[in-house]
Amino acid sequence: MATLVDIGVSAGINLFSATMFLLAFAVLRLQPFNDRVYFPKWYLKGIRSSPTNSRSIVKKFVNLDFGTYIRFLNWMPAALHMPEPELIDHAGLDSAVFIRIYILGVKIFAPTTLLAFMVLVPINWTGKTLEAPAAKGLTFSDIDKLSISNIPFGSKRFWAHIGMSYVFSAWTCYSLYKEYMIIATMRLRFLASERRRPDQFTVLVRNVPPDMDESVSEHIEHFFCVNHPDHYLMHQVVYNANMLASIVAEKKRLQNWHVYYHNKYERDSSKRPTTRTGMMGLLGTKVDAIDYYTAEIEKLSQQEAEERENVINDPNAIIPAAFVSFKTRWGAAVCAQTQQTSDPTIWLTEWAPEPRDVYWENLAIPYFDLNLRRLLTTVSLFFLTFFFMIPIAFVQSLANIESIKKVFPFLKSIIEKPSVKSVIQGFLPGLALKLFLILLPSVLMAMSKIEGYSSLSVLERRSASKYYLFVLINVFLGSIVTGSAFQQLEHLINEPSSEFTKTVGSTIPMKATFFMTYIMIDGWAGIAGEILRLSSLITFHLKNTFLVKTEQDRQNAMDPGSLNFATSEPRIQLYFMLGHVYAPVTPLLLPFIVVFFAFSYMVYRHQIINVYNQQYESGATFWPDVHRRVVIGLIISQILLMGLLSTRGTSKSTLLLVAQPVLTIWFHLYCKGRFESAFVKYPLEDAMVKDTLERAIEPNLNLRHYLQEAYVHPVFKGDEFEKQVNVEDEEENPLIQTKRACRSSKPESDNEAGSAASSTTVAM
Amino acid sequence: MATLVDIGVSAGINLFSATMFLLAFAVLRLQPFNDRVYFPKWYLKGIRSSPTNSRSIVKKFVNLDFGTYIRFLNWMPAALHMPEPELIDHAGLDSAVFIRIYILGVKIFAPTTLLAFMVLVPINWTGKTLEAPAAKGLTFSDIDKLSISNIPFGSKRFWAHIGMSYVFSAWTCYSLYKEYMIIATMRLRFLASERRRPDQFTVLVRNVPPDMDESVSEHIEHFFCVNHPDHYLMHQVVYNANMLASIVAEKKRLQNWHVYYHNKYERDSSKRPTTRTGMMGLLGTKVDAIDYYTAEIEKLSQQEAEERENVINDPNAIIPAAFVSFKTRWGAAVCAQTQQTSDPTIWLTEWAPEPRDVYWENLAIPYFDLNLRRLLTTVSLFFLTFFFMIPIAFVQSLANIESIKKVFPFLKSIIEKPSVKSVIQGFLPGLALKLFLILLPSVLMAMSKIEGYSSLSVLERRSASKYYLFVLINVFLGSIVTGSAFQQLEHLINEPSSEFTKTVGSTIPMKATFFMTYIMIDGWAGIAGEILRLSSLITFHLKNTFLVKTEQDRQNAMDPGSLNFATSEPRIQLYFMLGHVYAPVTPLLLPFIVVFFAFSYMVYRHQIINVYNQQYESGATFWPDVHRRVVIGLIISQILLMGLLSTRGTSKSTLLLVAQPVLTIWFHLYCKGRFESAFVKYPLEDAMVKDTLERAIEPNLNLRHYLQEAYVHPVFKGDEFEKQVNVEDEEENPLIQTKRACRSSKPESDNEAGSAASSTTVAM
Repeated sequence: MATLVDIGVSAGINLFSATMFLLAFAVLRLQPFNDRVYFPKWYLKGIRSSPTNSRSIVKKFVNLDFGTYIRFLNWMPAALHMPEPELIDHAGLDSAVFIRIYILGVKIFAPTTLLAFMVLVPINWTGKTLEAPAAKGLTFSDIDKLSISNIPFGSKRFWAHIGMSYVFSAWTCYSLYKEYMIIATMRLRFLASERRRPDQFTVLVRNVPPDMDESVSEHIEHFFCVNHPDHYLMHQVVYNANMLASIVAEKKRLQNWHVYYHNKYERDSSKRPTTRTGMMGLLGTKVDAIDYYTAEIEKLSQQEAEERENVINDPNAIIPAAFVSFKTRWGAAVCAQTQQTSDPTIWLTEWAPEPRDVYWENLAIPYFDLNLRRLLTTVSLFFLTFFFMIPIAFVQSLANIESIKKVFPFLKSIIEKPSVKSVIQGFLPGLALKLFLILLPSVLMAMSKIEGYSSLSVLERRSASKYYLFVLINVFLGSIVTGSAFQQLEHLINEPSSEFTKTVGSTIPMKATFFMTYIMIDGWAGIAGEILRLSSLITFHLKNTFLVKTEQDRQNAMDPGSLNFATSEPRIQLYFMLGHVYAPVTPLLLPFIVVFFAFSYMVYRHQIINVYNQQYESGATFWPDVHRRVVIGLIISQILLMGLLSTRGTSKSTLLLVAQPVLTIWFHLYCKGRFESAFVKYPLEDAMVKDTLERAIEPNLNLRHYLQEAYVHPVFKGDEFEKQVNVEDEEENPLIQTKRACRSSKPESDNEAGSAASSTTVAM
Repeated sequence: MATLVDIGVSAGINLFSATMFLLAFAVLRLQPFNDRVYFPKWYLKGIRSSPTNSRSIVKKFVNLDFGTYIRFLNWMPAALHMPEPELIDHAGLDSAVFIRIYILGVKIFAPTTLLAFMVLVPINWTGKTLEAPAAKGLTFSDIDKLSISNIPFGSKRFWAHIGMSYVFSAWTCYSLYKEYMIIATMRLRFLASERRRPDQFTVLVRNVPPDMDESVSEHIEHFFCVNHPDHYLMHQVVYNANMLASIVAEKKRLQNWHVYYHNKYERDSSKRPTTRTGMMGLLGTKVDAIDYYTAEIEKLSQQEAEERENVINDPNAIIPAAFVSFKTRWGAAVCAQTQQTSDPTIWLTEWAPEPRDVYWENLAIPYFDLNLRRLLTTVSLFFLTFFFMIPIAFVQSLANIESIKKVFPFLKSIIEKPSVKSVIQGFLPGLALKLFLILLPSVLMAMSKIEGYSSLSVLERRSASKYYLFVLINVFLGSIVTGSAFQQLEHLINEPSSEFTKTVGSTIPMKATFFMTYIMIDGWAGIAGEILRLSSLITFHLKNTFLVKTEQDRQNAMDPGSLNFATSEPRIQLYFMLGHVYAPVTPLLLPFIVVFFAFSYMVYRHQIINVYNQQYESGATFWPDVHRRVVIGLIISQILLMGLLSTRGTSKSTLLLVAQPVLTIWFHLYCKGRFESAFVKYPLEDAMVKDTLERAIEPNLNLRHYLQEAYVHPVFKGDEFEKQVNVEDEEENPLIQTKRACRSSKPESDNEAGSAASSTTVAM
C-alpha cells in the first residue's frame, strides 16, 4: 500500500509534468505563428487578424518580448476576467453552462473537504485500530490512518460518519438545487433575450403519412392549413440529399489534394508532382498529380450537377418530413407541444433544432424502425459495456508472438529479435485496449446515430449517457472490484445484493491511493495537456505549410475544436462520484478533486473564450442530464457507504442510512418537476411576450422572407436554384386555391401579401 | 399433497355453492318486489317502472308464473345478447371496456390451454420421474404427474417448456396488442361520436399564483386573455365548499332519521316515537324524536344558509384553481397540452375531468405539498405492503385471553367459559386480519386522496395500482413463499437474486393445487355471490320499509352500485398472473382460469346491463394501466420460469429465456408509444373536426350559456344564487374594460354578445 511519501512523489511528478505543459503553452501561445492555434475563436469572430502583417520577419514568427514570458501564468486571471453575461454572449450559453459544472464541483467539494478535515480526519486519526497491538501484522500507511479503516470494529465513532454522510448529501442536494435554479433562469433569460431565430418559429414534422392523391408538400400544406388555420405560415420539405452531400464531401477532399500538389509544384517547378491512382495514393499506376485531380474534380462536378438535378426533380427524393413554420412563436409552441392526430405514429411534431444543429441523415426514419433500432442499440450497448473485454482479449491473443509466427511465418526471424519481441509482448496487447478506448466515443456516437435522433445536440447527449454507463461500470466499479464487468455482473446475480454492496463497499478504502494517482494523471496532467492543444498545433502547421494559399485557406486550416460534451461530461461525472464516495471514507482524496475542478474550470474557461467554436447552440439543454447523473453518483455513494459500514459491525446504525437514497430520489423527482420543463418546453406566455414585442418593434417584418432559406440542407446553401423554383411557384402553383381556403385571422401585412401565394416554398 | 380426487371434491363443493347462488339469484330476481335490486339501471334510465302498479296484491310481491323458474339460467344468453355498440351506449365505455378484460383473459388462455394440453401434458405425463424406483419415497399425486415436476433432472424435454414459454408469451403479446388497438379505436370513436360535453371545452387550471392587485378571478381572466386571446371564453372559479358540503351531508342524514320516525309515527299513531340525544341515539336524555329532528334540521338549515353566504362573500373562500373554458375544443386541447409559463409549478393546466368526476376537496393543494404528499404516501405504501403484519400481530396479541383478563379483570368470569374462550381464541385473531383486508381498499383510497389527485377516475386508478402491489406481494408471492412479505424482503436482500428466483420458482409447482382451490373459492363462488347482491338486497328492503314514502324516496333507496375498478381490476390481474406462471408449469390449472374468465364475463355483462350505474365516464382511460399490469405479470412469470428451470439441471438452456423479458419490455414500450397517447392526449385534428362540424350544424350555439353552470360545486347545483350574481355582474363588472382589450378574432354570434360582458361567471 502506498504511503504518504509515495503519494507525494506521484504528486510531484504529475505537478511537474502539468507545470511543463503550462510552461510549453505559455511559450507557444505567445509566438505569433501559433496565434491561430491558441486564439482561433477571435479570428472566427473577425476581431483578431493575423499578426504577421505588420511586424518584422522574425517577429512574425517568434515573440522576442521576454517580459511576457515571465508572467507565464497570466492567462489565468485573464480567463477569469470576463464577466458571465459577456461570456454567454461571446461563447454561447452551452459553453458558459458547461464550465459551470466545474464550478459546481468546487462549490460542492470545497466545503465538504473543509468539514471532512475538521470532523472526520481527527476522529479517524485517533481511532488507533491500525496501531493497536492486535493489528501488528497488518501493513498500513499514514493515509489509512486518516481513513475510516482506522476506526475499531463496531465503534460508536461511526455515528460521526453516518451523520457527516447526511450532511454531505444535504449540502450536495442544496448546491444542485441552487445550480439547477440558476441555470434554468439563465436559460430562460437567454431564450427571452435571444434575437429572432428561425427555430423559434419552426417545428420539425416527421412521419408525414403517404397520400395517394397529393405530393408530400401538398399534403403537409393542407394538413396544417386545416389544423392550424390561424397560425400556419409555410413549410420547407426535406430532400434526401445524403448522396449529394457525400459527393460534395469527396469533391472537397480532392480539391485539398489538388491544392497540395499545386503548391508543391509552385515551390519546386522543376518537376510535376505525381501520384498513384490506387488506394491512398500508394498503389496503382503513376500519373501526373495535378492533371489527375483536375480531371477527377471535373468528373465529380458533373456527377454533382446530375445528382442535384435528380434530387430536385425526383418526387421520391422528398422524404416524409418537413420544417413547418408559423406566423408566431405562439403558434409554433402550440404545434410543437401538442399531438396532431389520433395516431401517435404519424405527424410527429417537435421543436425544430437550430439549422446548424440538424442531423439531416436521420429525418426520414419511420416510427416502427425507430423502435426497433432503439431495442437493438440498447441490447448492443449492454453487450458492449459488459462484454467488451471478450473481443479485445481475442485480438490480444492474436497479437501475441506465437500466433503471428503461425500466420506470417516469413516474419519469424524479425519478431524473434529480443527488442522486437519485447515491443510486441509489452505493447501490442495494451495497444488493442487503448485503440478500443480511443474508438469508443465514435462507436457510441455511431450507435446514437443508428437510434435515429434528429439533431446533433441530442446525439451528443445520448452518446454522453452511453459513455457514462461505460465509465461507471468499467472504470469506477472495474477499478474497485478487480475483474471484468462481466464477472461483476455474474457476482451481482449470484451473490446476495447486500453481499455485493458489502464487497464493493469494503474495497473502497483500499483503492483510495489508486484513485488519487488516477486523478493526478487523468485530471491534473490531462487537463494541462488539453490547454497545450498539441495535435491541433501540429495539424495547423502541416495544413499551413501544404494547403494554405489564401487568407481564406488559412481560416479553414484552423481547427478551433469544441467542447466535446459526449466524452468530457461523463468524465467529470466520474470525479463527482469519486468525491461523493470518498468524502466520508477517505477525506484525504477530496483536495485532489477540488484542485481538479478548480484547475479545469480555469483551463476550460480560457479555452471557450479563446479557442473553442461550438457547432450549435442548444441553450444548455443538457443540464437535466448533468443533474441526473450527479444524483445517480450520489445515490451510488450512499449505497456503497451502507455496504461498507455494515461490514464494520454497525449493522443496526447502518439502517439509519436507508432513508438517504429514498430522500435523494425524491429530491431528484422534485427538481425534475420543478425545473426540467424549462429545458424541454417552451411556455406560451414567453412566446406571447416575444411575439407582442416583435409586432410592436417591427410591424412590417416579412417573416416569410426571413424563414425562406433557413432550413435548407447545407449542400444547397447559397444555391441559386431555390429562387427559380419560387418563381414558377408563384405563377402556376396549383395550391393557390387551397391557400385561399385557409382562413387567416388577420390581414397579412403588405409586403407579406406579395409572397403569400408561394406558400409551398420548395426550398428545402 | 392434494390428489385429483381432492381437487374434484373441492370443485364439486364450489360448483354446488355457485349453483346455489345462481338458483337463489334466479328465484329472487323474478320476484317483483326485488325488481329494483336486480334491475336498478333500467329504473334510473326511466325505462322500467315499478311493476307493483298494475297487478294483484300477491303478484305485486311474488312471481307465480312457474314457467319462468325453469329457465333459471336464461339471464346468461340475455346478457350476451346486447351488441357492443348498444352496450357502450347503454352502460358507458368504461363498463364496456372493463368487461373486455375478462374477454381478453379468455382470448389469451383458451388457446394457451389447448396448446398446453396438446403439447406439454403428454410430455409431462410420460416423464416418469415420479414413478421411477428412485422416487419411491416421494409422495406425489396425479396432478404432479401432469406437471413439470415429472420431468427428470437435466432432461432434454425441458426444451419443450422453453419453446412453449416463448409461444405463450408471443400469443399473449399478440392478444394484448390487438386488444390495445381495438380499445384505442373504441375510445377514439367514442370521443368522436360523443355529444357536446362541458369538459370538451374546459381546462382545469391549478396553482394560480397570488397577485397583490387582483382577485383570483381577475388574475385568471387577464392571464388567459393575454395568452390565449383568440380562444379564451370564460372561467369558473372554485369555492372552498368542503365545510358547506359536510353540513349538507349532515342535514341529509338527519332528514333520513326524521322521515324514519315520521313513518313510524304514521303507522302507529298511538305513541310519539322517542330518541336519545347522545351517541347514536343510545345515550343521553330521552326526547320526542320528531320534534328533536325537526329542530336539529332547522338549526342546520340556518347554519347552511350562513355558510353559503360566507363562501360567496369571503374572497378567501376562492381557492387558486379554476375551470377555464374556451370557444373551441381546439383552444382547450391546446391549453391542456401546453405549458403556460416558464415556472412549471404555477398555472398548471390539464383537461378538466367531467363535472361528475371532479374530486373537489383536492383542487387547492400547492405544488410543493403535492410532492411531499407523494413521498409520504410512497413510503407508507411501502411499509403497509411489507410490514402490515406487524400491527395486526400486535392487535392479535392484545385480543388473546390473557391480555383481556389483565385489562378488564371484571370480564374474567365470562371469558373463562369454554364456549366464549374458543370464540375468542379461534375467531378474534382471524377477525383482526379479515377486518384489515376489508378496510384495505378504503385505506388505499384515502392514501390516493392524500396524494392530491383531482378526479375520481384518477383516484380509482391510483388505488388500483396500490392494491395491485399489495396483491402481488402479499397474495401471490406470500402464498408461494411461506412467511411474511417482510421476511421475503429480507430474503431478497440477503440472498443472491438468482437464488431468490430459484427458491420462488421451484416452489411454484407445489402450490398449484392451492391456487386451484383459491380460484374456485374466490373466482367461481365469489363471482356467483356477486350476482346475488345479497347486501344490496337487504339494504334495499330495510330502506324500503323504514324510509320510503314517495316514489322519489324509493328511487333513492336503490343502490345500484358500480364496477369497483380499484379492487376488481387488481384481482383480475392476479388471475392473469397465475395463468402466465402456471401455463408452462402445471397446465392443469389453466381450465380453472378460463372458466373463471368466461363466467365472470357473463356475470359482469349482466350486471353492467341491469344493475351498475357508473358515477362517471372516463372513456376507458384505465386501459394503459391494465395493459401494463398484464405485461408485468407476464415478465414476472418469465423470470420465475427461469428460476424454476435453473434448479432442474438446465442452466445452459435457461440462458435462452433471458431474451424473453427483454423482448417483452420492448413490446410494452412499443405499445406505449403506439397507443398510450390515445388515452392521455386529445389530438388537435379530432378537436378541429368536431369544432367544424358543430359550427356547421349549430351556427348559433350559445356556448357561454351552455357552460355557465357546468362546473358548479355539487352543493350549489340548482341554486338560485348564481343567477343573481350574473345580473350584478353584467352591470358593474370591473373587468369589462379588460374584456374589450381581449382581442377576439371572430365577431361573437348575436345571442352570445348578450352575455359577453359576464365573462367572470362567479358561478363556481
